[in-house]
Amino acid sequence: MQFEFPYASLPAVMRGPREERRRVIVGGSAYWGTLIEDGEKAGLLRLDDGRTVDPTALVHLPPVSPSKIIAVHISYSSRSYETRNKPRPTETPTYFTKPPTSLNGHNGQILKPADCRYLNYESEYAVVIGKTCRNVLPDEAWDCIAGFCPALDMGLQDFRDTDQGSMLRVKGADTLLPIGPGIVRGINLFEQTLRAYRNGLVVQEAHIGQETIWGPHYVIADLARHITLVAGDVILMGTPCHSRSVEPGDVVECEITGVGRLSATVKEIAAPRAAALGVGHMPTDSAEVRRVAFGFDERVPAYLKDNYRAAANAKPDSNEADS
Amino acid sequence: MQFEFPYASLPAVMRGPREERRRVIVGGSAYWGTLIEDGEKAGLLRLDDGRTVDPTALVHLPPVSPSKIIAVHISYSSRSYETRNKPRPTETPTYFTKPPTSLNGHNGQILKPADCRYLNYESEYAVVIGKTCRNVLPDEAWDCIAGFCPALDMGLQDFRDTDQGSMLRVKGADTLLPIGPGIVRGINLFEQTLRAYRNGLVVQEAHIGQETIWGPHYVIADLARHITLVAGDVILMGTPCHSRSVEPGDVVECEITGVGRLSATVKEIAAPRAAALGVGHMPTDSAEVRRVAFGFDERVPAYLKDNYRAAANAKPDSNEADS
Amino acid sequence: MQFEFPYASLPAVMRGPREERRRVIVGGSAYWGTLIEDGEKAGLLRLDDGRTVDPTALVHLPPVSPSKIIAVHISYSSRSYETRNKPRPTETPTYFTKPPTSLNGHNGQILKPADCRYLNYESEYAVVIGKTCRNVLPDEAWDCIAGFCPALDMGLQDFRDTDQGSMLRVKGADTLLPIGPGIVRGINLFEQTLRAYRNGLVVQEAHIGQETIWGPHYVIADLARHITLVAGDVILMGTPCHSRSVEPGDVVECEITGVGRLSATVKEIAAPRAAALGVGHMPTDSAEVRRVAFGFDERVPAYLKDNYRAAANAKPDSNEADS
Amino acid sequence: MQFEFPYASLPAVMRGPREERRRVIVGGSAYWGTLIEDGEKAGLLRLDDGRTVDPTALVHLPPVSPSKIIAVHISYSSRSYETRNKPRPTETPTYFTKPPTSLNGHNGQILKPADCRYLNYESEYAVVIGKTCRNVLPDEAWDCIAGFCPALDMGLQDFRDTDQGSMLRVKGADTLLPIGPGIVRGINLFEQTLRAYRNGLVVQEAHIGQETIWGPHYVIADLARHITLVAGDVILMGTPCHSRSVEPGDVVECEITGVGRLSATVKEIAAPRAAALGVGHMPTDSAEVRRVAFGFDERVPAYLKDNYRAAANAKPDSNEADS
Repeated sequence: MQFEFPYASLPAVMRGPREERRRVIVGGSAYWGTLIEDGEKAGLLRLDDGRTVDPTALVHLPPVSPSKIIAVHISYSSRSYETRNKPRPTETPTYFTKPPTSLNGHNGQILKPADCRYLNYESEYAVVIGKTCRNVLPDEAWDCIAGFCPALDMGLQDFRDTDQGSMLRVKGADTLLPIGPGIVRGINLFEQTLRAYRNGLVVQEAHIGQETIWGPHYVIADLARHITLVAGDVILMGTPCHSRSVEPGDVVECEITGVGRLSATVKEIAAPRAAALGVGHMPTDSAEVRRVAFGFDERVPAYLKDNYRAAANAKPDSNEADS
Repeated sequence: MQFEFPYASLPAVMRGPREERRRVIVGGSAYWGTLIEDGEKAGLLRLDDGRTVDPTALVHLPPVSPSKIIAVHISYSSRSYETRNKPRPTETPTYFTKPPTSLNGHNGQILKPADCRYLNYESEYAVVIGKTCRNVLPDEAWDCIAGFCPALDMGLQDFRDTDQGSMLRVKGADTLLPIGPGIVRGINLFEQTLRAYRNGLVVQEAHIGQETIWGPHYVIADLARHITLVAGDVILMGTPCHSRSVEPGDVVECEITGVGRLSATVKEIAAPRAAALGVGHMPTDSAEVRRVAFGFDERVPAYLKDNYRAAANAKPDSNEADS
Repeated sequence: MQFEFPYASLPAVMRGPREERRRVIVGGSAYWGTLIEDGEKAGLLRLDDGRTVDPTALVHLPPVSPSKIIAVHISYSSRSYETRNKPRPTETPTYFTKPPTSLNGHNGQILKPADCRYLNYESEYAVVIGKTCRNVLPDEAWDCIAGFCPALDMGLQDFRDTDQGSMLRVKGADTLLPIGPGIVRGINLFEQTLRAYRNGLVVQEAHIGQETIWGPHYVIADLARHITLVAGDVILMGTPCHSRSVEPGDVVECEITGVGRLSATVKEIAAPRAAALGVGHMPTDSAEVRRVAFGFDERVPAYLKDNYRAAANAKPDSNEADS
Repeated sequence: MQFEFPYASLPAVMRGPREERRRVIVGGSAYWGTLIEDGEKAGLLRLDDGRTVDPTALVHLPPVSPSKIIAVHISYSSRSYETRNKPRPTETPTYFTKPPTSLNGHNGQILKPADCRYLNYESEYAVVIGKTCRNVLPDEAWDCIAGFCPALDMGLQDFRDTDQGSMLRVKGADTLLPIGPGIVRGINLFEQTLRAYRNGLVVQEAHIGQETIWGPHYVIADLARHITLVAGDVILMGTPCHSRSVEPGDVVECEITGVGRLSATVKEIAAPRAAALGVGHMPTDSAEVRRVAFGFDERVPAYLKDNYRAAANAKPDSNEADS
């Protein structure tokens, strides 16, 4: 494991008991609730008002309301190996941001504009900051974490050629950050496995403890050298190998064992009105765009590629006519 | 003028009468007020509670509270010419972001960590969004603007070698976005001149109408193709040529005729604690860093360079011992 | 009309064209959209991303996000007459507040705890503040209004005996402020009729222009004497006569002609856990509680009372088994 | 002690070590910092960026940013005895609210409009909520508390005759809630003494443990029966006996041993513009107003009354000419 573990004692946010908080729509209204962990009602959601509901089909609102969202470019060894052919991409982690308007809840839609071709999934876990944090050391950083969420850091790679690396338009469009179903604490994240699914088939898979290059404590200490993190801020911790493009109707999921399984459906919308006037950088299909959209298949496990191809024909019927 | 002007009629936000709103500290408490435009009290601030104060030496809080801050890389022809040797840098504008924690008020401090050398000024105007805005055309975009502010998009160029173009650490550190003194409407921005001052000497200067490559209406329509802008969001509109580094004790100002003059003082702080542990990308002094920090003097008017050098010795005395 | 009307010219917020903005859940995700006013698609909602949806059965989120919510006790002559037997209740308006956590969207649930009996409707219009506002005169106050929404100021009258008049628990519980469907401008509010419906039958009805004792301009100028109103703040403008109690399963609606029709369903939940420990003021059934819950039938038009009684047996079947 | 104490073990928020966080203006910019507890720098503030400053004369911003502020009417036995002549005012606590715009920082101004006479102090401690909280029991409520702050719940008693008990205008005007200097945890609140000072002389004094009728755990459990409390929300816990009026130039302080000493200066401003038009309830000087403004001297310890009178002539000179 490429990580300064095990700890003498787990940080509080990773010690049990497990707690998961969700914000859902029931009967048209929004409520907070806590997942029931044990007993015959395990898996049901106890709303704070006392009612118990089955959350399976509910609309979920994002369980976070961050003032800023910062994402690590690469922090999994398999992605570094796929894209850079080496075990770590750079000496130290690098970052970009996503705007709060990109937030989306579990069971929602990921919008794919009609003039874009390459909408890539990236299955990740998000770290939610619990208190104001600046100028801390890695060992101190754990205390600043409120919990963890599954997240999909979706990207419209058609805009890879613009923004000079900031990826504002690649990663910043509305709906490109499904997060949830809930925010979880009490789980040892480094013993978990992270997966992405396309139409039910596994297309990304990584043991977090084995693949992590820089943990959240390192990333927080790095960022907080000069940037104050405040309660509610979200850090996206990167994705393992095999980020690939998905199509309208596809169901994309991020699963983190012990934390949760986040689902979203790709939905096509029209190109924006300003596109007809030629305003702004048009989506492109350059070599660089395709390099990122297609990745490097030669350095990806065969079963992920096989599943990805099989999944293209496994689109749920109901999504075809989805309005 | 490289701009689709004149308008048959000016957008409302640029038509008179002028109005400037500021948020200041008086006697230890924060108040909103309106600048008095005419008469013998012109230039004083009328607090909303009726009192009149001289705002000259007051602490000013940022007059905005954005959920996101988006910045144009280059939208002035002189900067495009300086850095790219051509009148427009790219076919279409490109963008990056700054986090809300970088916000700072008029008359504040810009922090320069002791392990960084190249803290560059960029004098800009900020556009403040007035209502939710998505999928609009350039002509419609003017209605989404609440007002304009002077702004300093400061950058720690020592981090130019990291973050793969997102510039999170170059542009995102705490205090790196002084903005104000107020938010202004009722001014035809395209008839104004934008300047930066170092210790009172002009070091950037551009006629906004003559230099603008893409106006705020174009930028809003471009961004809002895929990203919802919400009331309070801030767009930084880029800087003209001659962004250069400043030193602790320097007073840096952004002046926009008709809009206001924003001031800040560079203040040195210690390197962050995590630096001693080698956490994160260390500030570097590479060719690329120096290229951006130093710019291209051969394509900059002589008087700006002369002033910049003269200003190095014109630091206000009081700032030497500033605590 | 008991109102300083007509105006030489209508305030901008009441002049056409009509515009209605809503925030809805489509396919599990939240979107802003604008109601289509004319043509064959009139009544459909154009999402900002270009899609057109039928909003009828959609989950609606509250179209506002206020930092404070202030409510007028009485500003309709029929309510003053019902409860005080005189045309105006007091020389000047009086106010209370509701917390932001009481907000609820169109088509949602109003929660009635099992230990409470008297959940009263009050059909109102809400004024949404558009910009910072302090120390203004009534004529100036119109410019501070962003729009209007239908609203239901629900109250658990069982708590009438506590809180010494603040009504925090009467009016402040979660879900007790349905608001929407959208936020509307471009309608002359004083030509509209406000109604409440119980299970489809009219139980409150007032012509706003004829009944208004104090208009929003007066109320804003009154409040802003000492309290700064900020963009997004909500003012609830009071209700006409015949506020009465509703039961689980009842559908309660607020309709304002030209503005919209807001719907919510009463849903019973268990008494709070702390009730079993005797924590806090228990719901009571005192004379004062009943005085407010039942009102004064002798001063209410017969058709409203008839409808109210008929509505008790007109509960939609589907609500019986509502989970 | 009228309280379910001692605990087998103190709640975490009351166990050491002590931590105090403040937000201050240094050199015109806002920073978070932590008070230094021990050693030769004890009492200085370590800014998060590493600098150490003496906070004594600094502008302090409020250390909280609540979405709602709820206040207990009476929860100290001495106040119950003063105003009701019995040890507890009611069987259960009652509440009112203050808007977020009433917030004010340490070392600030409390505004007294020229048409008001009776601006009363109430020295209190504030409870800051640390996480979403609904339907909890008193024992569980402690975990929802992030910390405590000194607070001054100022009131313009001239408006006592309006608002039918909600006290919106008595307690809700801008600047009427000084809070700070910081937010503190790690102190056993029930072993502390709460005081108010007028111009340096003690005018309220109570041992919190001995006087508390309902502790914060009870109040949270009570409120959270029906109202969701969210992170950042503030609960004001009431004041002991001898709330009295203060005058322009007076320095009013709230001290809580172990927690901090909050200071503010009363500043007169003009009556609001709308007052000249007769808009809204005018400040009155009725028997009820005077009853609350003057209190019941016969049930107040002599030294507090003596100090109050002596303090009237102890106004700091510098405040006379305060602008």
